[in-house]
Amino acid sequence: MSSIFGKLFKISTWGESHGKALGVTIDGAPAGVFLSEADIQPMLNRRKPNNSATSTKRKESDEAEILSGVFEGVTTGAPISIIVYNGGQNSRDYSELADVYRPGHADYGYEKKYGVRDYRGGGRSSGRETVSRVAAGAVAEKILAELGVTVAARVFSMETAAPGDSAGGVVECVIKNLKPGYGEPVFDKLDAVLAAAVFSIGAVKGVEIGAGFGAAKIPGSLDNDEFYFDDSDGQVKKYSNNAGGILGGISDGSEIIIRAAIKPTPSIYLPQRTINSQNQNVEINIKGRHDVCIVPRAVVVVEAMAAIAVTDLILRGASAKISSIKKIY
Amino acid sequence: MSSIFGKLFKISTWGESHGKALGVTIDGAPAGVFLSEADIQPMLNRRKPNNSATSTKRKESDEAEILSGVFEGVTTGAPISIIVYNGGQNSRDYSELADVYRPGHADYGYEKKYGVRDYRGGGRSSGRETVSRVAAGAVAEKILAELGVTVAARVFSMETAAPGDSAGGVVECVIKNLKPGYGEPVFDKLDAVLAAAVFSIGAVKGVEIGAGFGAAKIPGSLDNDEFYFDDSDGQVKKYSNNAGGILGGISDGSEIIIRAAIKPTPSIYLPQRTINSQNQNVEINIKGRHDVCIVPRAVVVVEAMAAIAVTDLILRGASAKISSIKKIY
Amino acid sequence: MSSIFGKLFKISTWGESHGKALGVTIDGAPAGVFLSEADIQPMLNRRKPNNSATSTKRKESDEAEILSGVFEGVTTGAPISIIVYNGGQNSRDYSELADVYRPGHADYGYEKKYGVRDYRGGGRSSGRETVSRVAAGAVAEKILAELGVTVAARVFSMETAAPGDSAGGVVECVIKNLKPGYGEPVFDKLDAVLAAAVFSIGAVKGVEIGAGFGAAKIPGSLDNDEFYFDDSDGQVKKYSNNAGGILGGISDGSEIIIRAAIKPTPSIYLPQRTINSQNQNVEINIKGRHDVCIVPRAVVVVEAMAAIAVTDLILRGASAKISSIKKIY
Amino acid sequence: MSSIFGKLFKISTWGESHGKALGVTIDGAPAGVFLSEADIQPMLNRRKPNNSATSTKRKESDEAEILSGVFEGVTTGAPISIIVYNGGQNSRDYSELADVYRPGHADYGYEKKYGVRDYRGGGRSSGRETVSRVAAGAVAEKILAELGVTVAARVFSMETAAPGDSAGGVVECVIKNLKPGYGEPVFDKLDAVLAAAVFSIGAVKGVEIGAGFGAAKIPGSLDNDEFYFDDSDGQVKKYSNNAGGILGGISDGSEIIIRAAIKPTPSIYLPQRTINSQNQNVEINIKGRHDVCIVPRAVVVVEAMAAIAVTDLILRGASAKISSIKKIY
Repeated sequence: MSSIFGKLFKISTWGESHGKALGVTIDGAPAGVFLSEADIQPMLNRRKPNNSATSTKRKESDEAEILSGVFEGVTTGAPISIIVYNGGQNSRDYSELADVYRPGHADYGYEKKYGVRDYRGGGRSSGRETVSRVAAGAVAEKILAELGVTVAARVFSMETAAPGDSAGGVVECVIKNLKPGYGEPVFDKLDAVLAAAVFSIGAVKGVEIGAGFGAAKIPGSLDNDEFYFDDSDGQVKKYSNNAGGILGGISDGSEIIIRAAIKPTPSIYLPQRTINSQNQNVEINIKGRHDVCIVPRAVVVVEAMAAIAVTDLILRGASAKISSIKKIY
Repeated sequence: MSSIFGKLFKISTWGESHGKALGVTIDGAPAGVFLSEADIQPMLNRRKPNNSATSTKRKESDEAEILSGVFEGVTTGAPISIIVYNGGQNSRDYSELADVYRPGHADYGYEKKYGVRDYRGGGRSSGRETVSRVAAGAVAEKILAELGVTVAARVFSMETAAPGDSAGGVVECVIKNLKPGYGEPVFDKLDAVLAAAVFSIGAVKGVEIGAGFGAAKIPGSLDNDEFYFDDSDGQVKKYSNNAGGILGGISDGSEIIIRAAIKPTPSIYLPQRTINSQNQNVEINIKGRHDVCIVPRAVVVVEAMAAIAVTDLILRGASAKISSIKKIY
Repeated sequence: MSSIFGKLFKISTWGESHGKALGVTIDGAPAGVFLSEADIQPMLNRRKPNNSATSTKRKESDEAEILSGVFEGVTTGAPISIIVYNGGQNSRDYSELADVYRPGHADYGYEKKYGVRDYRGGGRSSGRETVSRVAAGAVAEKILAELGVTVAARVFSMETAAPGDSAGGVVECVIKNLKPGYGEPVFDKLDAVLAAAVFSIGAVKGVEIGAGFGAAKIPGSLDNDEFYFDDSDGQVKKYSNNAGGILGGISDGSEIIIRAAIKPTPSIYLPQRTINSQNQNVEINIKGRHDVCIVPRAVVVVEAMAAIAVTDLILRGASAKISSIKKIY
Repeated sequence: MSSIFGKLFKISTWGESHGKALGVTIDGAPAGVFLSEADIQPMLNRRKPNNSATSTKRKESDEAEILSGVFEGVTTGAPISIIVYNGGQNSRDYSELADVYRPGHADYGYEKKYGVRDYRGGGRSSGRETVSRVAAGAVAEKILAELGVTVAARVFSMETAAPGDSAGGVVECVIKNLKPGYGEPVFDKLDAVLAAAVFSIGAVKGVEIGAGFGAAKIPGSLDNDEFYFDDSDGQVKKYSNNAGGILGGISDGSEIIIRAAIKPTPSIYLPQRTINSQNQNVEINIKGRHDVCIVPRAVVVVEAMAAIAVTDLILRGASAKISSIKKIY
């Protein structure tokens, strides 16, 4: 199972829902960035369940501890290991699911792939795994802040659900102040890497950039963003931003706009038909504490993955031309 | 510029629109697969411009030649180098674009990134680059055929355009007979890798799996695909396939369904506002021969990238459990 | 700083000599292997300082704790995170080295590279970092044991040192029962990967395979290992093993033999000339507790890195031919 | 079969001894470097057989053609594809080896790995494969020249051989003007990457850096290179260079010194015992044209691989600290 994302700024995550801890090792973070737990905790807090109607009642304290890579408050270039201990899980809730495959979950495919499965709360496939991503995203946002780049996600739309049922929605993420010229023009296009980053979040079923699927319905004369030079501030701008800030896989200096479709939480409190590991048709009634709608909590995860993806591409862009390399050699 | 895709089945593409040739080196193809140019040419032919109203009048003969990796008609495990010589380009059409950034194209970001740019026909950013992908996709489909897996894309929807304008549309790709258990459950999820593969195609602005953005609007009780065991043929099946065959990033044995939104061709025959390299506001009138709508030609490119992505994940899955490794050690 | 090794069986290490802890995340270990701390601790114990004349007096308890990737005593395919908490360091010993570059150490280059440096005990460059490698090596050896492959290193030669001085030596590692056909024939040759693995250990200044540098001095008629088929046991064998079990980068079924030259410990108790960060010529007198000769402790590190390298190549070999893939698809 | 080397400056080689052509695609070369075939040909010419007593009589014209990545004489950042057509091979010489495994060659392991084998002249395992490396090395040296870094290899020692027999030797390579701070301090150490690069050359059986195996025999007080600041030119220097310019995996500003042991050519004109594919014990008499000693021709290959490795590490170093990234963002 590969759990590493990125080519220069690489995050390696680990941990299961009901294991001792979850964590991430960030490999390739540049030296010289101020960093402490205080930079990470607010991001983790945004991910926590709250008291709203859509959120699980499970308590997740989620305190991050930096174990390496920071000396006297500054990153050293060494791997940054961050750990978050688990606590408050109730393994009894899950024991009856050891042998049954929940609809909408990874259970069945996971069992076919590995032959064994940590069934407690989804194990490695649990949404708990995103704790590691959010911690790494906080580090990415610190690095981006050094360059003036900001990343901010929000709920774009959200459904409600009948009692016992669940709902999905759409998250939008905007990246500001990314200079033109980032993203690799062929396979590791800025949009392709962002899409891979966001699609790697459990419940995402669709990703679009800028006008997205809407772009497929309008003519080129409307979709094309015309460039102009703004004399008032000496900046290159566009009259529109249907491209969502990305042309040919490369940032064009406009805001990067990405939207992710989040499916409804698959754990619902209604009886469902499924099979067990003996291929018998059975009915399943899922208990335990689950989010009715994970969209609000997914916001910070989408933001984190976008920040990680952009940080990696900025680092990779450092060697794009010999004149840049000469400047820092 | 990274032009390599994949982790075990890796394709490395090269070539510009108006250069001598384009090509691809496939690294990591398994030995023992029958392969000849006759397996590649039909895929390349599907990509060629035709005589329809939406297609460019430019002639592209696009004959593939295998230069390595095949001996006596069988792959040897060595890198498979495939070359397609260019021909029929008209460089005069493009010379006036050396200094101007076309709206909707990569020109501006490319110049910012590299400082230099092969402006002839888009250079490396041209749709011509997909010749290499299609050739590699043909090899991937040959490998998949050995396992009974098929990949087939088609036009899902397509717009028309007013004279001088252009249009986009949606391509759908279906992968059949992929067994459950493929895809890495965290970052390199089957959907994330497919999305990255398809989003790396020039004009793609959105990707969705199964119910996609529609899944964000329905409750969990409707979205969840219930499993059942079909006694009549001894197969595990689902009553629906909103998941598009992927749960938690892993194939569930159903058809994999992926759709890509293609934006309208950015080259249109209408005057557009833009800037030149001296940051002057200018008007541009694009000439040359271009597709009014690339959706029909994008079909085989989407199919190729999907085939490449799935092949890579199948190869990576070979070492998922020790019982498999023992079988082939 | 990249601290990830391997392409399918990937280890990601982190931690500094005087930080809170060190650890490793193993990504890509196959599911279904029995594993517990009891498999790791003996390897870590072999690495510990002992009471011999050549060993540091520093106490290193080095107890490994598995934090993820194992469920009910079996690997699940998920990342295996292992942590070893630090303890017993004496940071006072090192504070005076904050500004001075020790001869034979990474201090100077490290400062030039990152601008900052955790100077306590060498920080990330300390030999303590090998704790993570040894823990990962123990996991690799468990996997190899499932296939009957064994890895064993020993002191091949070792020098003694005058009081206050230090000494080096040679470690030899032998891998038995590796079947023919492992190693990638071009860049990731079995010998190249083993060399990279072993050369990545701090004090290694040379690596040779089989007859090694001696092979450069004998004629082909003596160096070539002739094959024969042994009717008594039905095995292919060689009359000699100058190749050290590797031909053209691929295992030939014989024992793999690798030797590593270990330089003398650079920390000595004699005055040395060097510079400080203000480019002033100064004299340095290193205090603290150091190994006079690290060769005995390096044995298990060489073994661990060799085991990790071979495990990765065995996993990569699983997809070499279509007939193998069919067997496990 | 992986035939890709490097992480940012990646070379992907392809081609067999008796195929149509060999070549390399260089992915990740920075834009803005002057490059033409005239920069590559002299390196290829140094690799060619000459009229000396030790060289094969086979004619290799080896003319390199750049197919992509260069526009108006300058690299564009796009992949640089270089092709060298084969010519002058005599396939008849090899047909009788289809079924027999030559001692000292990859034949046996190759057959076990892939099940099929291009037996003509060694196929992919032939020394001809190094044509691609040398072409890529020429590009690397052009990039290094922009930074003032030079790479130069030479015959360090060489044996002679009795008639019909073969001989080996040692190649030394020196890298000058590499600034301190290059190389990743843990796994991708400068020495580890150089060792992997050089060990990936077919006949290499040992690699050492600086004092190498000799370092294992001297005390730390002799092996340590003391630093000093030279007031006359304002440079940091060392009184000795046993480290071969590398400390803790990072360049220290001194000359990088690497030596490679080359085994005698395995193709000899004396009868040898071996087996065939039916596991029968047979005698083999190798015909054809072979180098008696490949050491002189290996010089440029070692130099090329060293240049490629250093170029990759310089590019990777561009993102080591945030202050550098800010300078070029």
